[in-house]
Amino acid sequence: MNLYDFLSTTQEMAENRGPHDHVVLSSRVRLARNLKGHPFPGRAKKSDRVEACELISAQVAGLASMRGGYVESMSSLQALDKQLLVERHYISREHAAKSAGSGLALSKDESVSIMINEEDHLRMQSILPGLQLKQVWQKIDRVDTNLEARLQFAFHDRLGYLTACPTNLGTGIRVSAMLHLPGLVLQEQINQIIQAVTKLGHAVRGLYGEGTEALGHIFQVSNQMTLGESETDIVERISKVLLQIIEHEENARQTLLKNKTTELHNYVGRAFGVLAHARIINSKETMNQISLMRMGTSMGMFPTLTLAALDELFLISQPAHLQHLLGAKHAGEERDVHRANLLRERLAGVKGLQLPK
Amino acid sequence: MNLYDFLSTTQEMAENRGPHDHVVLSSRVRLARNLKGHPFPGRAKKSDRVEACELISAQVAGLASMRGGYVESMSSLQALDKQLLVERHYISREHAAKSAGSGLALSKDESVSIMINEEDHLRMQSILPGLQLKQVWQKIDRVDTNLEARLQFAFHDRLGYLTACPTNLGTGIRVSAMLHLPGLVLQEQINQIIQAVTKLGHAVRGLYGEGTEALGHIFQVSNQMTLGESETDIVERISKVLLQIIEHEENARQTLLKNKTTELHNYVGRAFGVLAHARIINSKETMNQISLMRMGTSMGMFPTLTLAALDELFLISQPAHLQHLLGAKHAGEERDVHRANLLRERLAGVKGLQLPK
Repeated sequence: MNLYDFLSTTQEMAENRGPHDHVVLSSRVRLARNLKGHPFPGRAKKSDRVEACELISAQVAGLASMRGGYVESMSSLQALDKQLLVERHYISREHAAKSAGSGLALSKDESVSIMINEEDHLRMQSILPGLQLKQVWQKIDRVDTNLEARLQFAFHDRLGYLTACPTNLGTGIRVSAMLHLPGLVLQEQINQIIQAVTKLGHAVRGLYGEGTEALGHIFQVSNQMTLGESETDIVERISKVLLQIIEHEENARQTLLKNKTTELHNYVGRAFGVLAHARIINSKETMNQISLMRMGTSMGMFPTLTLAALDELFLISQPAHLQHLLGAKHAGEERDVHRANLLRERLAGVKGLQLPK
Repeated sequence: MNLYDFLSTTQEMAENRGPHDHVVLSSRVRLARNLKGHPFPGRAKKSDRVEACELISAQVAGLASMRGGYVESMSSLQALDKQLLVERHYISREHAAKSAGSGLALSKDESVSIMINEEDHLRMQSILPGLQLKQVWQKIDRVDTNLEARLQFAFHDRLGYLTACPTNLGTGIRVSAMLHLPGLVLQEQINQIIQAVTKLGHAVRGLYGEGTEALGHIFQVSNQMTLGESETDIVERISKVLLQIIEHEENARQTLLKNKTTELHNYVGRAFGVLAHARIINSKETMNQISLMRMGTSMGMFPTLTLAALDELFLISQPAHLQHLLGAKHAGEERDVHRANLLRERLAGVKGLQLPK
């Protein structure tokens, strides 16, 4: 099955909204699982990996929740396909480098994705827009329960689920949310927030996971501990922290509007000016400028724009999505021209920053 | 007489055009003269300076070419007035710091301005838009001849006119033109041009004379030698060099358009985007962005704009002109907001970069 016939359009994806999505871009829970009696992928011979992958793929394909879904070996995907899946956060950058012996499964609505033979035999995640941690936990918990009825997972009475990396041991859970925090960045409160969140035992990272930059003022908050706490407790604890961060971000935006009105309008107005008039723009600058317009839009500064429209622009400005949209292969420089053309087209009807009367 | 009742409006000033004004902003000739039997201003006591200033002012006021003009002591001008005169290039920054014992005269059409007791007793200049070196030379030569009939200038048979600084000795002439060279800057050919022009015995400086930065891609080319060559020879020699620079700048713009089309449109488009949408902008950024739009306009990229409109924007974006326009005193930060408001207003009807069909 062609991946692109399967995948939702960027518009469908962007129009799928969730609670608090002016700050929370998406919520995600992933579980790490391994098969009993099979060597972990990192230590397995290729034949072992292929065997495990086939075994898992067959069982995943048989799940009711995966009906109408997409199950493929990584070897059947092109580099561009993989990069596109990374940009949608369906697979990790590491998994994108995998080939035969590794696989991918996506549920029909794309809310569940399963990496087969990444670091662990199974990395299954559920992702939904906005703040919906309980929902994604319930979704992935159901998948896990149903799979466990079909496969024997490596489990230790005292340690819980065994994983390739000890940081995942126990529940194998990673609960995370992607947050859009331009207000806290502009107010220079972001480091304070990161410190506080880290002290509470959570990790904060950039857009594409560990060690990546916070492009577009986007931060990923996730749990650190996977041992000694139940999954629901972890989800509940991190949900509370997220609600606090949302409040801080809202306050930062309101404080900017009240105390640094013109500075705020200047940031947002210039972002529009550049996006609507540049003829060459790279993805990094695009992300940072769209980020500012997104904040402005959520504050009513572009009455004819929606967050969905900007989120779609953000997605199609990413290298692989842009490349796919253009159809042909383009070098980075050409892409920067096409990206600028696309942005100008999409923003042509927008009048610039509107101040509330 | 109130200086502002006398001065032409910025619009009148900008609408006064000249040949080759897509590259040459203005042409200027100034002559340095000193009175015989009076100590040079730098060595004179205050009473001597006041006496010389009054003597000169009376004779200048009596000239036919200065009828309806403006003659005042520097002590009657406010700091803002002086800064405004600097921005129009009627007086030097050094002269703006002068007070009682120094003076200023402007002809009715502002094409002739005379600084009294700057470095020399008399610094008289004529300035006209575009490339008009012969015209400004003839104008100031007439003023000089008429003044010499009324005042005794310090003159040495072998050395010529005596001046405070030996670099002005002889003819006391400085012939200069203000050039807009964004093409050569973007093509990275400007240093080559500066070196060639310097080798030919001319000096190249930034917008406000010696040691100033080339803001807005503006360069001032002037003669170095004042001794051993007649005034008309100097004027002719520098005119030829200027025609060559104009050609190089035109070629640079055409090469950019041909070989780096999108880069050129990107520079110009972004400049418009920023100027039309910023809410805070300082004078330096404004000059550099207007400069790019000016080049674009001269190349037909903004069919509804004129060079005059941009030259006026450039002038009223300068600190003193802006301050005067606003009426009240404003701190630098406030000025940056008012400047942005002004630019947005003036550019509101402009659609952005238009590509030729």
